[in-house]
Amino acid sequence: MTATDPAALTAALIRCPSVTPVEGGALVLLEQLLSEAGFDCTRVDRGETSNLFARWGAKGHARTFGFNGHTDVVPVGDETAWTVDPFGAEEKDGFMYGRGATDMKSGVAAFAAAAVDFVRDTPPDGAVILTITGDEEGDATDGTTALLDYMDAEQEQMSHCLVGEPTCPNHMGEMLKIGRRGSITAWFTVLGVQGHAAYPHRANNPLNGMVRLMDRLAGHELDQGSEHFDASTLAVVQLDTGNAATNVIPAHCTGAVNIRFNDLHSGASLTDWLQAEADKIEAEFGLTVEMKVKISGESFITPPGDLSDLVAGAVEAETGIRPELSTTGGTSDARFVKNHCPVVECGLVGKTMHQVDERVEVAHIHQLKAIYSRILKEYFA
Amino acid sequence: MTATDPAALTAALIRCPSVTPVEGGALVLLEQLLSEAGFDCTRVDRGETSNLFARWGAKGHARTFGFNGHTDVVPVGDETAWTVDPFGAEEKDGFMYGRGATDMKSGVAAFAAAAVDFVRDTPPDGAVILTITGDEEGDATDGTTALLDYMDAEQEQMSHCLVGEPTCPNHMGEMLKIGRRGSITAWFTVLGVQGHAAYPHRANNPLNGMVRLMDRLAGHELDQGSEHFDASTLAVVQLDTGNAATNVIPAHCTGAVNIRFNDLHSGASLTDWLQAEADKIEAEFGLTVEMKVKISGESFITPPGDLSDLVAGAVEAETGIRPELSTTGGTSDARFVKNHCPVVECGLVGKTMHQVDERVEVAHIHQLKAIYSRILKEYFA
Ligand SMILES: [Zn+2]
Ligand SMILES: [Zn+2]
Repeated sequence: MTATDPAALTAALIRCPSVTPVEGGALVLLEQLLSEAGFDCTRVDRGETSNLFARWGAKGHARTFGFNGHTDVVPVGDETAWTVDPFGAEEKDGFMYGRGATDMKSGVAAFAAAAVDFVRDTPPDGAVILTITGDEEGDATDGTTALLDYMDAEQEQMSHCLVGEPTCPNHMGEMLKIGRRGSITAWFTVLGVQGHAAYPHRANNPLNGMVRLMDRLAGHELDQGSEHFDASTLAVVQLDTGNAATNVIPAHCTGAVNIRFNDLHSGASLTDWLQAEADKIEAEFGLTVEMKVKISGESFITPPGDLSDLVAGAVEAETGIRPELSTTGGTSDARFVKNHCPVVECGLVGKTMHQVDERVEVAHIHQLKAIYSRILKEYFA
Repeated sequence: MTATDPAALTAALIRCPSVTPVEGGALVLLEQLLSEAGFDCTRVDRGETSNLFARWGAKGHARTFGFNGHTDVVPVGDETAWTVDPFGAEEKDGFMYGRGATDMKSGVAAFAAAAVDFVRDTPPDGAVILTITGDEEGDATDGTTALLDYMDAEQEQMSHCLVGEPTCPNHMGEMLKIGRRGSITAWFTVLGVQGHAAYPHRANNPLNGMVRLMDRLAGHELDQGSEHFDASTLAVVQLDTGNAATNVIPAHCTGAVNIRFNDLHSGASLTDWLQAEADKIEAEFGLTVEMKVKISGESFITPPGDLSDLVAGAVEAETGIRPELSTTGGTSDARFVKNHCPVVECGLVGKTMHQVDERVEVAHIHQLKAIYSRILKEYFA
């Protein structure tokens, strides 16, 4: 039988204009391909979001390899800045262009092609599951979460899971992700007493407390990193007054910080610390400091072991490069999957993701399929 | 002859709707009154601004008492919040209501009434000059400055000058002003390198430099006051980023401070200090800090002496209260007059100035005329 072409499948997916939350034909296309290859497919749509669950082999098999990915893409942005049709999948000089070319229609295509060929050519004693969501780029409330809820309800289980997001900063094969830092955002409002700038002692300037608070937060060393994680970081991202007058001390001001934290902290421990710092400012300045926090994700890790060894070995065999096991980067749906089973992320070079003229080296799509095929072969060996 | 009624004159002036820069009939009315009383009157209009110069007695007389005031008023503001017609000069329970009732049509009326009666009843060996501007509340570029330019050109000279602005915080007679602190505003723009909040080491956060700068400026003790001045003050009045995203470190941010300074500083010395602090931030953070300053006025003082003794004595004789010689408060046109001759400010209770339902106690208008009359009498005694 002919091998499934992951590049042709990537091109077909790019031509589906699936900007979150629009399905755009991408999941329909995958469902057709996988059904024909003997996968049981179920659409697990929830709210505005379309999702696809597909299993080959027996439900509940003790050796079930899972894959998680998304077909939704971020908006095109400034379309006039693109040199090609963002949904055209045009090829030039060895690159395929289009929104989703790296993030992550190529990853989904490479795994689907590998899985279809694998179960047909060397049917394993085990099962293969694909969980593909149409909402990873949005708020993700009805995406991978809905798929995992469905699996819980149906007693579907992955033994291990691979997430196909782009993981390499610059060169194919250089990085896997075995975990992520957590993320918390805190918004502060400092309330003082308005007054004339000529009489600051009759006012209580909220900006004085705010700059002291932000200087302390920005200057605080959260940690120096842990075994598998870089040091946690804090960034002051907002500071606003909205006071047009220069002779008026404003009544209040706002600010926000974003913290990316490792396994030495939790959303709760950082909330406590931030609250304590806010309380100190209240006490020192006689101001009122209001705080609101949002924990976007806790840090998590699948410690180096069988799964990362397997994936890293396959990458090295196909690229000649031993990948670094990293916990850097922004959030991905691995933060949901990690509650279900061990999870590792392995994919392409992410350099152009979310940018104008997003593109993927066509040879990399084939290389990624080879990596995924090798992983499946060795997993069920 | 009948005494000129300063309350009736105040009411007539309030009924002239002279919101800066509109003349509104106020200077026309004064010119008529003063001309009939034997003053040489000249309109010294410049640009959009109307001004009135009036002299009784010989030009260039070595003993010339001057008065400075303004007939323009700030806008009514929320007219629906007023309980009376802002230009109606209505009297209720001993108070006269209207925009300009305290700031400062009553002051102009009290001096004009005192001067008219004085030169008629006891013509002095000397001269009396009134400089009345229609732009004190605006940007003041063509107001008192134009009058002083005119006087320079015409070799007109005041030996001493009284400014009739309201000077008493709460009680009639409690305060004169013999000088003012200076005012300087500095605007800072900190330019860094934008980046993702997850990778602060790849960005250079301008907010980190800004909060350190502002914390240092706000925490710095400029001085502890000088012989005639309170301590200089610095107020952080603006801090803005305009960054809606919490996952993005912004490329730049802006901030502003306003300093009210005494005679231990100058606009130039403070500019140097602010620039040095900005430079330190540049060096410490590798950021670019741009600074723009505006010196609204230098500090100045007419040291306690003959003029303040004369005015304070007259206040005490009429009110029973020995006034404090103060240098507090916002700017006034005394900052221009001080380049021409010694100047002291003496006027009413300013509590309701610029507010809704601005009002003056009618008895205070008569008391102020009595104070001004006594000053004239003793000055030429
Ligand atoms: Zn993605
Ligand atoms: Zn005034």
